[in-house]
Amino acid sequence: MRIAELSRVSGVPVPTIKYYLREGLLPAGELTSPNQADYGDQHLHRLRLIRALVDLGEVPVAGVKRIIEALNSDSLSLHDQIGRAHRAITPQPQLTASTEVRAEAAAQVDELVRSRGWTIDPDAPALTTLIETVAAFRTLDQDHLAGFLDSYADAVEKFTELEVAAVTSRADRTTPDQIAESVVIGTILGETLISTLRLLAQESISAQRWKVD
Amino acid sequence: MRIAELSRVSGVPVPTIKYYLREGLLPAGELTSPNQADYGDQHLHRLRLIRALVDLGEVPVAGVKRIIEALNSDSLSLHDQIGRAHRAITPQPQLTASTEVRAEAAAQVDELVRSRGWTIDPDAPALTTLIETVAAFRTLDQDHLAGFLDSYADAVEKFTELEVAAVTSRADRTTPDQIAESVVIGTILGETLISTLRLLAQESISAQRWKVD
Repeated sequence: MRIAELSRVSGVPVPTIKYYLREGLLPAGELTSPNQADYGDQHLHRLRLIRALVDLGEVPVAGVKRIIEALNSDSLSLHDQIGRAHRAITPQPQLTASTEVRAEAAAQVDELVRSRGWTIDPDAPALTTLIETVAAFRTLDQDHLAGFLDSYADAVEKFTELEVAAVTSRADRTTPDQIAESVVIGTILGETLISTLRLLAQESISAQRWKVD
Repeated sequence: MRIAELSRVSGVPVPTIKYYLREGLLPAGELTSPNQADYGDQHLHRLRLIRALVDLGEVPVAGVKRIIEALNSDSLSLHDQIGRAHRAITPQPQLTASTEVRAEAAAQVDELVRSRGWTIDPDAPALTTLIETVAAFRTLDQDHLAGFLDSYADAVEKFTELEVAAVTSRADRTTPDQIAESVVIGTILGETLISTLRLLAQESISAQRWKVD
């Protein structure tokens, strides 16, 4: 199909498609004349993946590029693919907590990881962000929220196991490339799914308790 | 304290503090001379709140401004405060799913909300985002992930109840302003807490299953 048709089917404007082509997120179409290229179903699929990561996952274009490079690579393990996706969606905060508060937060997080038997790379970006978030709760006089860390981790472990089960349940019917793509989509859009469900559950409780008509 | 001292104690650079003052996020200090202002503990506290929302909550400055206006207002109910915080952190996707796929996704989400007895405003931004995310799973051939919606909602309901309990456990010892601030911080930083815990739980499972040394 021509670029206009690709735009119509995908709902993505032509200038945006051209931008993704320039940035190397989308592979070039097959040239049918010096000024015209033909695009196939693999372009449409890739374009939908890019839009989902950008729009729903709120991943910056540079992050999407690194994820797509990882998906295109034959040498990265699934563990490394997941690492790329994680780095693309983990906020990297400026460290503003005081040394003392951060040390307390780090000790709390270390104890959590140890007690759960989690295998975590000490350089994992999510580790720094979690410590800084716990430190922020303390700095903002919301220690009671950080006190629920273990209960949160319980709930989170449950649905992480569900997510892994969802991906591996299809492992026998799919290629390694499809598994990697499924894991990346699940990691990133799964976060959007969980956060919107949480907002809806909060809204419902809030409407029942605090809504003033 | 002078602005340089406020910067030192908070870890926020002076130009950033001046930007927040210009944008009206931070109230002006008390003028002690035509060129000098004095800042107190309430400025330090507000500055730390702004940094936490921007850095850890990844809330854009315009969203932080709306949240702070809400916190400053005497007329907004707690339910409306929560609504402001929700709108500030809900991705607003372009709608690219086809009409047919979106209708299927909307039916699945409607059924979820109905079966759980949730009270949701039909205009809730999280509702649109959830429908579009479920539609994206379908469009990207990941229907199996959308199939876990109900199990996710189970897990999410559990920790939302924990979060509300955490806030209301302090309600007798705090003013309405402090409750509103606590709810907003819990809503926004709670999301960072949950998402980083999820990434760590995923990393651990991934390291145990798929890491290649």
